[in-house]
Amino acid sequence: MEMGRQHQAALEDLLQWRRDVRHFRADPVSPETLSRLRAAMDCAPAVGNARPWRVLQVDDPAKRAAVIADFEAANEDAASGYDDDTAAQYRALKLAGLREAPVHLAVFTETDPNEGAGLGRQTMPEMLAYSTVTAIHTLWLAARAENIGVGWVSILHPDRIAAICDAPKSWVLTGYLCLGHPERYDDTPLLHRAGWQETKPTYWEVV
Amino acid sequence: MEMGRQHQAALEDLLQWRRDVRHFRADPVSPETLSRLRAAMDCAPAVGNARPWRVLQVDDPAKRAAVIADFEAANEDAASGYDDDTAAQYRALKLAGLREAPVHLAVFTETDPNEGAGLGRQTMPEMLAYSTVTAIHTLWLAARAENIGVGWVSILHPDRIAAICDAPKSWVLTGYLCLGHPERYDDTPLLHRAGWQETKPTYWEVV
Repeated sequence: MEMGRQHQAALEDLLQWRRDVRHFRADPVSPETLSRLRAAMDCAPAVGNARPWRVLQVDDPAKRAAVIADFEAANEDAASGYDDDTAAQYRALKLAGLREAPVHLAVFTETDPNEGAGLGRQTMPEMLAYSTVTAIHTLWLAARAENIGVGWVSILHPDRIAAICDAPKSWVLTGYLCLGHPERYDDTPLLHRAGWQETKPTYWEVV
Repeated sequence: MEMGRQHQAALEDLLQWRRDVRHFRADPVSPETLSRLRAAMDCAPAVGNARPWRVLQVDDPAKRAAVIADFEAANEDAASGYDDDTAAQYRALKLAGLREAPVHLAVFTETDPNEGAGLGRQTMPEMLAYSTVTAIHTLWLAARAENIGVGWVSILHPDRIAAICDAPKSWVLTGYLCLGHPERYDDTPLLHRAGWQETKPTYWEVV
């Protein structure tokens, strides 16, 4: 189909107001909403049409507690790597909403799928994980369109999360996501607002 | 801002009708359109707000010819890896529109950026490349909203493309993109239509 001005305007709003959310309200996300987000992921691009993303919705309290403990250990390791002033600034940032978020999703990549028969990933095997990343970004935008916030937590040990989730050996963690209703909407990245890193424009050169 | 039904409907159209395009018309993409696509990438998520994507628009005919030669070599290597019947099926697929597409973009990841001061990528350094992937996917959707097709070519040797583009040593190729007006619109992946790999639904399990 031919897209029109309303598609461009809607996408602009979604891109401008999509944030990495770490401040969640406690009220649940409905199963119907999660089902629509799952359906949105079905439309993500995938190398060789292999669709290697595998989503585990982590509801078990013991698994969640183990994930939070891993985050806290990795976060303290990261803080310790900075000089004193920067470490204090780092520790003041809220970098995850794992305790508050009503939904946790561990998104893995099947690193040896039959699907696709290897097409498109002989010289760039990383394309499988990249496909999962586009599926995560698709979920993120679909969630934003439903006014649901998503936070991508990368301060974790991927092998440890895979073990906590009893993931098959051929699965590698690509992203760990928190979902929920955000406390507020914002059009500016938190790390820009907090003075950690200003937002810079995209580098684009003609060669 | 609060998103409404029009945002959900527009995003559904964009996701459903976004394709990996390999069939392009020859007419150019306007500089104003490319400028809007670049601005859309500014809104992509990035670990530590580091924004490590680096776009080279490859206009030089000699560079383009070298990229096409690398694709053809990698594609023939890939075909040779299949049994005779599958190789014939593989060779019948059109997997890139490098000769026809009016715009080529080589999208790299700066693997050692100052921006972000390492935040969010101590245990998962792959988050830098993943940020570039979300920027590519953002460009892809913004292009679709303007009825411009994008094809992501991964049948290439990333080191060779970096050399052709004279990229700095710290840049790694994440994606090589063809852009142009598509010959037709489609809501079904080419590899599904061609019988190479059917589209399967997203795996999602509660644990």
